[in-house]
Amino acid sequence: MSPTAFRFARRTSRLTPSMIRELMKLMGRPGLVSLGGGLPSADGFPAEALREVSQRVLAQSPREALQYATTEGLPALREWVAQRLRQRGLAVPATQVLITSGSQQGLDLVAKLLLEKGAKVAVESPTYLGALQAFAPYEADAVEVACDEAGPRPESLHEVAGARALYLLPNFQNPTGRCIPAARRRQIADQARRLGLPLIEDDPYGDLWFDRAPPPPVAAQWPEGTVYLGSFSKILAPGLRLGYAIAPAPVYDLLVQAKQAADLHSGTLAQHLVVDLLRTGMLDAHLDEVRTRYRLGRDAMAQALHTHMHDLATWQVPEGGMFFWLTLPPQIDAATLLPPAIEQGVSFVPGIAFFAGSPMHHSLRLSFVTEPAERIVQGVAALAQVVRRAMATFREAPGRPKLP
Amino acid sequence: MSPTAFRFARRTSRLTPSMIRELMKLMGRPGLVSLGGGLPSADGFPAEALREVSQRVLAQSPREALQYATTEGLPALREWVAQRLRQRGLAVPATQVLITSGSQQGLDLVAKLLLEKGAKVAVESPTYLGALQAFAPYEADAVEVACDEAGPRPESLHEVAGARALYLLPNFQNPTGRCIPAARRRQIADQARRLGLPLIEDDPYGDLWFDRAPPPPVAAQWPEGTVYLGSFSKILAPGLRLGYAIAPAPVYDLLVQAKQAADLHSGTLAQHLVVDLLRTGMLDAHLDEVRTRYRLGRDAMAQALHTHMHDLATWQVPEGGMFFWLTLPPQIDAATLLPPAIEQGVSFVPGIAFFAGSPMHHSLRLSFVTEPAERIVQGVAALAQVVRRAMATFREAPGRPKLP
Repeated sequence: MSPTAFRFARRTSRLTPSMIRELMKLMGRPGLVSLGGGLPSADGFPAEALREVSQRVLAQSPREALQYATTEGLPALREWVAQRLRQRGLAVPATQVLITSGSQQGLDLVAKLLLEKGAKVAVESPTYLGALQAFAPYEADAVEVACDEAGPRPESLHEVAGARALYLLPNFQNPTGRCIPAARRRQIADQARRLGLPLIEDDPYGDLWFDRAPPPPVAAQWPEGTVYLGSFSKILAPGLRLGYAIAPAPVYDLLVQAKQAADLHSGTLAQHLVVDLLRTGMLDAHLDEVRTRYRLGRDAMAQALHTHMHDLATWQVPEGGMFFWLTLPPQIDAATLLPPAIEQGVSFVPGIAFFAGSPMHHSLRLSFVTEPAERIVQGVAALAQVVRRAMATFREAPGRPKLP
Repeated sequence: MSPTAFRFARRTSRLTPSMIRELMKLMGRPGLVSLGGGLPSADGFPAEALREVSQRVLAQSPREALQYATTEGLPALREWVAQRLRQRGLAVPATQVLITSGSQQGLDLVAKLLLEKGAKVAVESPTYLGALQAFAPYEADAVEVACDEAGPRPESLHEVAGARALYLLPNFQNPTGRCIPAARRRQIADQARRLGLPLIEDDPYGDLWFDRAPPPPVAAQWPEGTVYLGSFSKILAPGLRLGYAIAPAPVYDLLVQAKQAADLHSGTLAQHLVVDLLRTGMLDAHLDEVRTRYRLGRDAMAQALHTHMHDLATWQVPEGGMFFWLTLPPQIDAATLLPPAIEQGVSFVPGIAFFAGSPMHHSLRLSFVTEPAERIVQGVAALAQVVRRAMATFREAPGRPKLP
């Protein structure tokens, strides 16, 4: 009997490797300027503080920090999350905070509760690839809600009424960098409540603002109808694999049971390290540093794009987060540019990775947080060359491409 | 609109809180002798070694240890696992090792691939509660395979042919403590291969032997038909949340994709700590210590049971692992003894928690690894009192209960 002894569940036909994580393998190529993956700058990790904290935790409370723990998470960490969210306008008790293994696990667990064959889940267009991947094995169909530059259009929500949830990334969205304004947040929440359309609000980037903090979470407008997901990956370090989910009571209890079945609980040592680290009060100064660093990256990329690509693409300059979203002339298929770009020493992610339905082939995502400013400039210049070359082949054909 | 905006997937009706993890909340009661949960002794955690290693890792390679990582896991850790398994008789390349967030996640992921509504999954009777919980949301029906004191009966496997897999815990099983002998392993693998019945082999306790190492894994007999799950929870510390899954190629690729969707990857820092720790060569001496400690617990419990319960229950003395499995007279429902036992200052887990089908109400599980020897004795004595009192109520009724 061969491996064919295995018969797979129908849902496995929905599993696909992430284009981005496959790209990450290419990105090991020495010298490549990585504008592709969304790796936070390792320069911004609080390594020294974590080293000190790990000394303390493993000397003072190793028995707790290395043991099994409750599924919900460390009470002190849940309390910290609740307080932090209260400061940001979302009043939530610590008893509704579930510590997760990164916010990706939050997506998986909420999908496990809400999605199934025959159901729909509404998403922005474009949206975070990792969410599409987390939703896929639960066999619901992802449907796109119409969006404009301010986010999902409230008047279009009725077209996805009946979906099990609308998945939103309101702050400095991955991939577009777009931040939903306060008024639009209210409209979306009002309309969703009216339609009985629950929200999944994913907020890994909310602390990464450059000029001013984003408006309060959409969840603040409709806490009983929203599952809110957060993460320590972008404000401390992704390698700790810690995030959190906030949910109204009936959803919360099921989330806890689903998490228990999935991995019992998140890393105890990591949770102890983070609680201890946050207690030192380092976060605000640390976030200032990270914001300064990322703002420099954003500025470098904005300048480089202006210099090298003003005639090749359009974009909005993001006010936070990690990404620029470029729209190329519609004749260009960004995916076909990737091999020559890597040849030229620069990586990016083709926009098609981020669409549930009708993909914009002529779009791409650039990250400005992985590389230092001078390499960002170098990468954008290399990318511009690749796009310009592709454009030239069109110019040789009749009919000049127009900027979008 | 209230929380009723949420409509849940059908699978949520299968979610249940773990009796054990609910019990763990009671176990916070001060002074309670915990013979219930399966918490490894915190005295056995390599805390000091981890403290040193965390210094080194966070000083020397913080950029890698705190960053996102590949879904498969750290190459050095995967290589270590492969070498270790080769020593134990399972020849496997590192490319078939997936690092998971504890072996509980391995159970969740393999269930996600294999199980679905209308399918069956075969399990031992009794079996590990956490596996039943991991399988439940995927809506397959768990069916029991007939077992004797050596494990699943090969001649009974045909009764569960057609199941998507047979889940086995061959080494010092949770809850029975039973170790499947080498000959039985071969018979099971042969019969499973013949029937085209894939195996899920769960081995968290294989290193916790007291007298001699257990036979090679069942997977060694049929690697193309077996997914093998292992864990660092019992040999180092559960709070690190690290385990691994070994699978033949087509299953492996899907496992990786399912893990990517579920949590991207397991804790990078935890993986670096473990690799660095294992490289010091500390494991063999450390395991000797853990085995010595657990053997003392086993001996204390065996002696206490002999002294206090020889006329109240039957059991096999386990040759490794963490648990005794007690069979009480059939009139006794162990679950009803739990409240008076906690009143008396001792906890245990009623046997019914571990059955997929027909529960043995008159069984219970005792752990000998959480408490020191003198408290084990005290706990068993208290439990004996509770059982004796329950027996007395039967004696007052006509017809004396008989030992099983």
